[in-house]
Amino acid sequence: MSLLDNVINEISQERLWSRHLQLAEIGATPAGGVNRQALSREEITARQLLVQWSSPLGLIPYSDAIGNLFLRYPGKHAEAEPVLTGSHIDTQPTGGRFDGSFGVLAGLEIVEAMHGAQFKPERSIEVVAWTNEEGSRFAPGMMGSALFRGQRDLESMLKVEDLAGISVRESVEAVRAAEPNVASRSIGFPVAAYVEAHIEQGPILEMQQKIIGVVSGIQGKRVFRVTVQGEENHAGTSPRALRKDALVTSVDMLSALHIAMHDAEDIVKFTVGFLEISPNAPSVVPSSVHFSIDLRHPDSATLNALGDAIPGLCEQHRGPCTLQVKELSNDPSLEFPSVVRDVIRDVAVELDIDHMDLPSAAGHDARHLHYVCPTGMIFVPCAGGISHNEAESCKAEDLFNGARVLAGTIARLADRV
Amino acid sequence: MSLLDNVINEISQERLWSRHLQLAEIGATPAGGVNRQALSREEITARQLLVQWSSPLGLIPYSDAIGNLFLRYPGKHAEAEPVLTGSHIDTQPTGGRFDGSFGVLAGLEIVEAMHGAQFKPERSIEVVAWTNEEGSRFAPGMMGSALFRGQRDLESMLKVEDLAGISVRESVEAVRAAEPNVASRSIGFPVAAYVEAHIEQGPILEMQQKIIGVVSGIQGKRVFRVTVQGEENHAGTSPRALRKDALVTSVDMLSALHIAMHDAEDIVKFTVGFLEISPNAPSVVPSSVHFSIDLRHPDSATLNALGDAIPGLCEQHRGPCTLQVKELSNDPSLEFPSVVRDVIRDVAVELDIDHMDLPSAAGHDARHLHYVCPTGMIFVPCAGGISHNEAESCKAEDLFNGARVLAGTIARLADRV
Repeated sequence: MSLLDNVINEISQERLWSRHLQLAEIGATPAGGVNRQALSREEITARQLLVQWSSPLGLIPYSDAIGNLFLRYPGKHAEAEPVLTGSHIDTQPTGGRFDGSFGVLAGLEIVEAMHGAQFKPERSIEVVAWTNEEGSRFAPGMMGSALFRGQRDLESMLKVEDLAGISVRESVEAVRAAEPNVASRSIGFPVAAYVEAHIEQGPILEMQQKIIGVVSGIQGKRVFRVTVQGEENHAGTSPRALRKDALVTSVDMLSALHIAMHDAEDIVKFTVGFLEISPNAPSVVPSSVHFSIDLRHPDSATLNALGDAIPGLCEQHRGPCTLQVKELSNDPSLEFPSVVRDVIRDVAVELDIDHMDLPSAAGHDARHLHYVCPTGMIFVPCAGGISHNEAESCKAEDLFNGARVLAGTIARLADRV
Repeated sequence: MSLLDNVINEISQERLWSRHLQLAEIGATPAGGVNRQALSREEITARQLLVQWSSPLGLIPYSDAIGNLFLRYPGKHAEAEPVLTGSHIDTQPTGGRFDGSFGVLAGLEIVEAMHGAQFKPERSIEVVAWTNEEGSRFAPGMMGSALFRGQRDLESMLKVEDLAGISVRESVEAVRAAEPNVASRSIGFPVAAYVEAHIEQGPILEMQQKIIGVVSGIQGKRVFRVTVQGEENHAGTSPRALRKDALVTSVDMLSALHIAMHDAEDIVKFTVGFLEISPNAPSVVPSSVHFSIDLRHPDSATLNALGDAIPGLCEQHRGPCTLQVKELSNDPSLEFPSVVRDVIRDVAVELDIDHMDLPSAAGHDARHLHYVCPTGMIFVPCAGGISHNEAESCKAEDLFNGARVLAGTIARLADRV
């Protein structure tokens, strides 16, 4: 693999690291994190920087009706399905510098290395930044990859609004209006393979002192929205027995759910990350509470059993209030095909980089691409497993090694028709 | 009391009721309630309406540096301390049509009746609308009456900001700039007596089928703000054992507090009406939670014991998080003097209106006036005891009878020097 050696030797740790720091300046928070939410002005600026970096390499930029951005490195056979690699550049409101960005910048780095090594694969390679992976501004997340897969309806996604009442439609229009030189393309097309590089967002690689995670699959996830409706009343006068306090009920419900979801093995992931009470005034008995439930488990049967128990548990603890439990999504656990996992593992072995197989506890755009084409993921460690946090941190050398494995993997997958 | 009979006969049920409906149009909500928060544009409009109604009666309007509005009906002795009556016209964000407004409109009604009966008392009578009783936009509530009493510092109150960052100072300036014909006056002056008419905001009068409550006193209230600080993390990857989930901790804390504050007699009033979590995203483990505690009890010793237990209970349940419990206010239970209560009761007896003594479970501006002058309160029923709610409802006849008792009470208190 002397040609591949040439490509991998062109990977620059310094360039890759400095691009992470530059990208992190767009939406930088005082605490050292990043607030660059989906389809925001910050994301527009970040996309322009990506296009600017890709321009000297001759990459051809495209975007589709949801704003997914593709940077195409042409192969020998223009008509062959391309190989895709990438991730996302939107962040949580108090996100970090590496979640998502690494996958996109590593993708850019490997085509820059191919360009430097004058390596032209059989198939074209496209570096992709999927729209709205995080779902914090516009729900649901992984919007761009879900639409690419054809799982959701474009019109209903364009109607989604953020808390300020701004729609996905007008936000995508603003993004695309800012990119007059990016060609338009329809959503979804045949793909030969997809490989996403990402930080682990968990503690396992660090604890096992491994540099590369060959991702075996993605644990399943179910998302619920619970609405508890009580009755507003005066905090000083209404007797407890007559109250319909939506927060008292919600606390009872959440206590019961915490107990029911507790497993000694600590594999179940149960999170209430969103909760809003109304009217939210100190001297008014709350009339309503809305909260989210994010439930994950690598075993689909366990995930199904636990998730199915949630509506009944809530009903048992609704007290004097009325209740609505709505399931927003139900994604089963999935396993990536060995045809991709084996290539990643082989490259790691050949490059003599410590690696291990492990499942992804987090969801990724690769979840949707799995249903489009042979798909895989490459993980690198992040400090303390901390992610979705401004303190998220990675080592430049780990990112470099992740990009080297990605380069070898994509080069092999793309250099055959 | 033939002169008093003449005054009381001038009280108009129709005028009083129609003014309630007119005032409720300012800030009216689709659900039939009122959103007219302190020092808002809506309150400015409502104040102008009050001044407009008072003008044909020759009332002289004043306001002070916090925006308390006084409408003076001059008595025979201009130098004698006036008798004050009134309440407030600000509301909760989803408030009703009668809370506060009744006390101000009943005050206006009784001087209109005195004017109609050509009754000029020994002392002047002033109808007052206190600034920011509710405390929902600017904390703390009862701001105007507390400053009148001299309990708080004007400069620090003027610096208080609402969620949009607008200060009390700029809001008061806007209110007073809109009232060029209202004379300026310094905060706080000697007062002969204060009587506040108000809806009960509780179910007792209705349950006992009484029309008038002779208020014996106000139950004490302690207010706390609890901050739970955990650590943001990824909902899919971080193991439960490593999480510092501020909401899980808060649920544990609130469960423990609900148990500790539970009394079989249902006298303790424990309310968490305000709760905010951060960053409030479905797939992010919450890093922090802020919540309020509103604790009330008519017995000061019990109130002290329960309130003193709160910081320790929170500490016991803080789990892996850090904790701050701050007491924002501590108002002991108080009893109104018989010198005022007896007059109210005597008038109710003479008018043959069903009445009873009862304590106020809610706080009122009368709490602060109690420390300035002999003070009392007159309650009228509200449907189902429901208040701080858009569904708040009263009978026109009850308001009429409340105003009649108020007229007799104020006329007696003002007609002696």
